Amino acid sequence: MSFSELDKKFMQTALELAWQGRFSTSPNPRVGCVITRGEQIVGEGFHVQAGQAHAEIHALRQAGQLAQDATTYVTLEPCSHTGRTGPCAQALIDAHIKRVVVGMSDPNPLVKGDGLNILRQAGIQVDCGLYTQQARELNPGFLSRVERHRPYIRLKIAASLDSKTALSNGESQWITGEAARNDVQTLRAESCAVLTGINTILADNPQLNVRRFSALRQPLRIILDSKLRITPAYQVIQDVNSPTLIVTTVSDKVKKTVFDPYPHVSILTVPANQHGQIDLQKLWPALAQRDIGLILVEAGSILNSALLAANTVDEIIYYQAPKILGAAARNAIELAENPQALSDSEWRTVAVEVLGQDCRWSLRHQQSTVWLTGILE
Amino acid sequence: MSFSELDKKFMQTALELAWQGRFSTSPNPRVGCVITRGEQIVGEGFHVQAGQAHAEIHALRQAGQLAQDATTYVTLEPCSHTGRTGPCAQALIDAHIKRVVVGMSDPNPLVKGDGLNILRQAGIQVDCGLYTQQARELNPGFLSRVERHRPYIRLKIAASLDSKTALSNGESQWITGEAARNDVQTLRAESCAVLTGINTILADNPQLNVRRFSALRQPLRIILDSKLRITPAYQVIQDVNSPTLIVTTVSDKVKKTVFDPYPHVSILTVPANQHGQIDLQKLWPALAQRDIGLILVEAGSILNSALLAANTVDEIIYYQAPKILGAAARNAIELAENPQALSDSEWRTVAVEVLGQDCRWSLRHQQSTVWLTGILE
Repeated sequence: MSFSELDKKFMQTALELAWQGRFSTSPNPRVGCVITRGEQIVGEGFHVQAGQAHAEIHALRQAGQLAQDATTYVTLEPCSHTGRTGPCAQALIDAHIKRVVVGMSDPNPLVKGDGLNILRQAGIQVDCGLYTQQARELNPGFLSRVERHRPYIRLKIAASLDSKTALSNGESQWITGEAARNDVQTLRAESCAVLTGINTILADNPQLNVRRFSALRQPLRIILDSKLRITPAYQVIQDVNSPTLIVTTVSDKVKKTVFDPYPHVSILTVPANQHGQIDLQKLWPALAQRDIGLILVEAGSILNSALLAANTVDEIIYYQAPKILGAAARNAIELAENPQALSDSEWRTVAVEVLGQDCRWSLRHQQSTVWLTGILE
Repeated sequence: MSFSELDKKFMQTALELAWQGRFSTSPNPRVGCVITRGEQIVGEGFHVQAGQAHAEIHALRQAGQLAQDATTYVTLEPCSHTGRTGPCAQALIDAHIKRVVVGMSDPNPLVKGDGLNILRQAGIQVDCGLYTQQARELNPGFLSRVERHRPYIRLKIAASLDSKTALSNGESQWITGEAARNDVQTLRAESCAVLTGINTILADNPQLNVRRFSALRQPLRIILDSKLRITPAYQVIQDVNSPTLIVTTVSDKVKKTVFDPYPHVSILTVPANQHGQIDLQKLWPALAQRDIGLILVEAGSILNSALLAANTVDEIIYYQAPKILGAAARNAIELAENPQALSDSEWRTVAVEVLGQDCRWSLRHQQSTVWLTGILE
């Protein structure tokens, strides 16, 4: 399949449109759509929120009668099933679209090529595969839960130059500056859920919500609490504006009744592993089944290190402040296992940037890079 | 003093010209010069190597007769003394230059305003102070030895994501990738000297020279070796293409005769401090007196940490590879002293960039920032 420069330009616009929905489409994928006649765009749309119109529908409405014989650029295969909204493939047929250019086919088993087939059967020219990599980059969370049956795990670490996360006396607020902390709010807003451990709840009593800018939705808060030590006194229970999911190995139902008065709180019981901790291999599919795609982990060194050691982290967002906290301060990462040789890294650098005085370094695991982007090196 | 847009443009060109000499002017400052008539440049020059013509002379030669009534832009005050070359101020007068715009006055006690005064006395309009900060940024080493009577210390650290510099078994080659290692060669070439400790010599036997690109000069190699443990077997002695300075507290002259056959090797004896180590407070002025301005430190964790603890590091160039080496690996920085509160950082971020898969973060100490740039925040 070869695409023209015009095709590339319009798909680029569709990708940018899709990205506008990054804070709000969860659990749905981010999708952008452009309808063109010749060199002109006559309709644009992106998916805003689950339950509301898909990108194609917005673009078709804008195009109106001009959709006839037009070309549609859409980052993800149009849906073929009737969910909360009607199937988009049918809407494109009804509008007499002539050609549809698609970024990637939809791996969702409810669609999986059906959308493209319906269009082709209606005589529409369908060209799939333009900027597939960029289309996949829009939706690591959605693609992970559908393709890998587990969430995409993004680990946020805030540390010093010497990779310390707290002083020897435990003080950790604030290592990084204002700009980095604002950036974390953006990461939260992009996520289906924010995950932490019970130790962070007990020590810092965080809200774990988006509050530095107005958000259409709040991410779910997931608390890993194997022994169910949390009480309703903590902010993640008291604050009713974000849902909270407590993950525990405790099966005793009586113990859980204390949370009955809080309808925004739910409890997920997961089997324990041999160490009596939450079995992560059981947890991830259970979360994916609940349509949780992108998870931001904001936890302490112990949970962070456990996730890294278990090889379940897809991405690290590493904020480093230009401070040296000294040898006695607490390590941000504590991996018990030590490599015996300096081999190639398992991590790939995605980008670095300056935020205020801090350095923001984003990295993606090599396996995750291959899975998401198809790039082998 | 207010400068026109044209003034700014031409001084910018002079600054860029000066930077072309960054690998070769040591111990002299980097200086650039532009001669203009109206909107046109008629002469350009920069200082290439000590003992050769200064920037102004190159520019005047190119301008020839066109220098009459022209304007000269020069990043540093023209010299007034006859050193290895004649005074540039007199050359500008002889060429009948009408106006001289200067980035900064020369703090060198042999000049210090004399150059500007000579020009003014000859009836030339002299406007000093355009892009002073940028002019100072050209020459941290030169300015430090002249103004602070000590070298400007740039510390290079290569570490992992978790700030480890070697595996628990000691393996440290190579943590960072090819691009970062090439960049270190550039840092060496920019420096008057590369400094390391005897432990690094004994462990790694490095060459500490510029070899990945052809250089007009090699930086001096400085080995801190309080007990004089080095022998002629090591590369820094065997390789005669770079000068080597051994710094020791050993006064025994007989011990030093072993280096007599190596004319590129010299020995500096410095008093010991109370711990029997080289007294750094004595070392720095001695090095500045030897016209050593910019020093790149490439050492191990112990020396790096000692320099940081002694508050003598002006700049850190921190290369981090996207690898996690684990808790048992060796720390890149080991500060015994630990802050008891998270205050504002003493370090300022200058820039971050990606080099291959690695992150390159450059930081400058707040005190050094204030001294060099005059920026208080």
